[in-house]
Amino acid sequence: MPLRSYSKQNAVDAIIKKKKYPITEIAIAQAPVNIALIKYWGKRNEELHLPANDSLSIALDLKTTTILSQASKEDEILLNGVALSENNPFYERTAAFLSLFRPSSNFFFRVETKNEVPTAAGLASSASGFAALVLALNQFLGWEASTQDLSILARLGSGSAARSLFSGFVRWHKGKLDKGEDSYGIHLPDTLSELHFGVLLNATESKKISSNKAMLQTKETSPIYKTWTNQAHLDLATLLRSIEEKNIPLLGQTAERNSLFMHATMQTAWPSICYWNEKTIVALQNVWKAREQGLTVFCTMDAGPNVKLLYPKKEEKSVLALFPSLWCIPLLWE
Amino acid sequence: MPLRSYSKQNAVDAIIKKKKYPITEIAIAQAPVNIALIKYWGKRNEELHLPANDSLSIALDLKTTTILSQASKEDEILLNGVALSENNPFYERTAAFLSLFRPSSNFFFRVETKNEVPTAAGLASSASGFAALVLALNQFLGWEASTQDLSILARLGSGSAARSLFSGFVRWHKGKLDKGEDSYGIHLPDTLSELHFGVLLNATESKKISSNKAMLQTKETSPIYKTWTNQAHLDLATLLRSIEEKNIPLLGQTAERNSLFMHATMQTAWPSICYWNEKTIVALQNVWKAREQGLTVFCTMDAGPNVKLLYPKKEEKSVLALFPSLWCIPLLWE
Repeated sequence: MPLRSYSKQNAVDAIIKKKKYPITEIAIAQAPVNIALIKYWGKRNEELHLPANDSLSIALDLKTTTILSQASKEDEILLNGVALSENNPFYERTAAFLSLFRPSSNFFFRVETKNEVPTAAGLASSASGFAALVLALNQFLGWEASTQDLSILARLGSGSAARSLFSGFVRWHKGKLDKGEDSYGIHLPDTLSELHFGVLLNATESKKISSNKAMLQTKETSPIYKTWTNQAHLDLATLLRSIEEKNIPLLGQTAERNSLFMHATMQTAWPSICYWNEKTIVALQNVWKAREQGLTVFCTMDAGPNVKLLYPKKEEKSVLALFPSLWCIPLLWE
Repeated sequence: MPLRSYSKQNAVDAIIKKKKYPITEIAIAQAPVNIALIKYWGKRNEELHLPANDSLSIALDLKTTTILSQASKEDEILLNGVALSENNPFYERTAAFLSLFRPSSNFFFRVETKNEVPTAAGLASSASGFAALVLALNQFLGWEASTQDLSILARLGSGSAARSLFSGFVRWHKGKLDKGEDSYGIHLPDTLSELHFGVLLNATESKKISSNKAMLQTKETSPIYKTWTNQAHLDLATLLRSIEEKNIPLLGQTAERNSLFMHATMQTAWPSICYWNEKTIVALQNVWKAREQGLTVFCTMDAGPNVKLLYPKKEEKSVLALFPSLWCIPLLWE
């Protein structure tokens, strides 16, 4: 039975024993965007962002940079150079998260955050954003917390932020404990430099429905949700094997199937949820056609219309010939 | 265990005890297109087209007309006025079906068939086609077979043809028997004249993958296939209740969910199957948006990119305002 009375604040207090005042005037931190190969979709605990299944991601060499300092009268939050108003959803979410860590009720933060990617376009900017913010808080308030604890704190901001503290392959354990002490990201030592990555940016506008809301709707109404969590467990084992074997076709196929299954769970929710747009369908059909013609290329899609491609380095030229608008993004291995 | 050795010919011979020569020079028959509200997707017996689940359809006032006579040297098959060559897939499929009924090995048929809809565009022309052909054969060869038997024979041509012998709501029982004697369509007496129907023709070209092949691929590889058959069973009960209650919103919602689930089973197959194109996605999103704005309109999609709309008669004006290209097709109630 979930601990309904155990709040985010309780989870923070279990890690940060004593709220502290800044030990430095300014802190700067960076965290990478991560792309899930085995997706996170649905929670076992909504409040604590504890996932229903383990997920696995790769880090991109594409970062969020966050500068933290003290503000005088209220939180000041700048996103990509623009000061946000208090009723902006991103402001509200960030300020609520900061409230978990204020040294006193009249202490305010100034947060300057810059994303190298469009916000809320399915490139997981909230993940890198909360990871960078937690890293900056760790410096600013001198916590000296372990990476494991920082991953837990980032998770409380945005679930998949638990994976954005690391380079390379990252596994986020769903954990079993009610309070989530065992649900954090772990860096996997294997690298796979032959694996290349690119994005087809099919739209950059914000989502119609937030991932959090969509996950809950899926979990509560999709008749295949239980099968999804079982299959994600099996897919994870296959993906780990593909990494060990450095088998890019197996990795790509497993990631693509897992992503399509996640989207099928949304499609079978009620009201049904579909993050795809017309360009998504065309891209998907083109990936399949390319593969029928012998090209080793796979795709994965998150809660947005963008299609992300996975392929071996040696195919990059052929992939670019078919998808000239592909934005190739290096993976981050260290 | 399925009867692997029991062929289509065995099934035909169980109904048509003695092959007969024509009793008339020419026979003409018509059968309506049917649209499934609870879909047929996957077979319990491939050879005999025995479905894994019961399905339920409505008949459209849109027909296939077939004229049957004797040909001299080989089967002559004309589709919409055009004589087909022997290596045309439609020719091959029709000639193979006719071979089940030839009075002698050197007897040939001339089949002139006209569809009021584009062939193979997801408007179930093979269903109305085989139904009309079986009705024409019944006249031509003087079988005097029962409608139930004709439904079984039509099923051997194309599964969903079992539903195209009737007007109104039709339930196709999956049956339990190995030889399929209990798997046929039954006309349901209820009518629902307030229910209106229209099609958004998103493409008229032929399918990339046949329904038969796609069904088998889904059944063999989708992790949610078993859940699909269970859910279709539940959906059928809900749909029957909606008919009894003349509850169009419940009917529409149940049909839409069932259709989306069918497409989710294909999406989770490997290789994944998607009959949608860019226009399908736009139409789907527009239907959802219209419903959010208070309009009672639902959709259903078959193995093709077209989107079919279901709505109460009183909403037709509003539906047409939102979807000006909608092709409104009357339902056939008697």
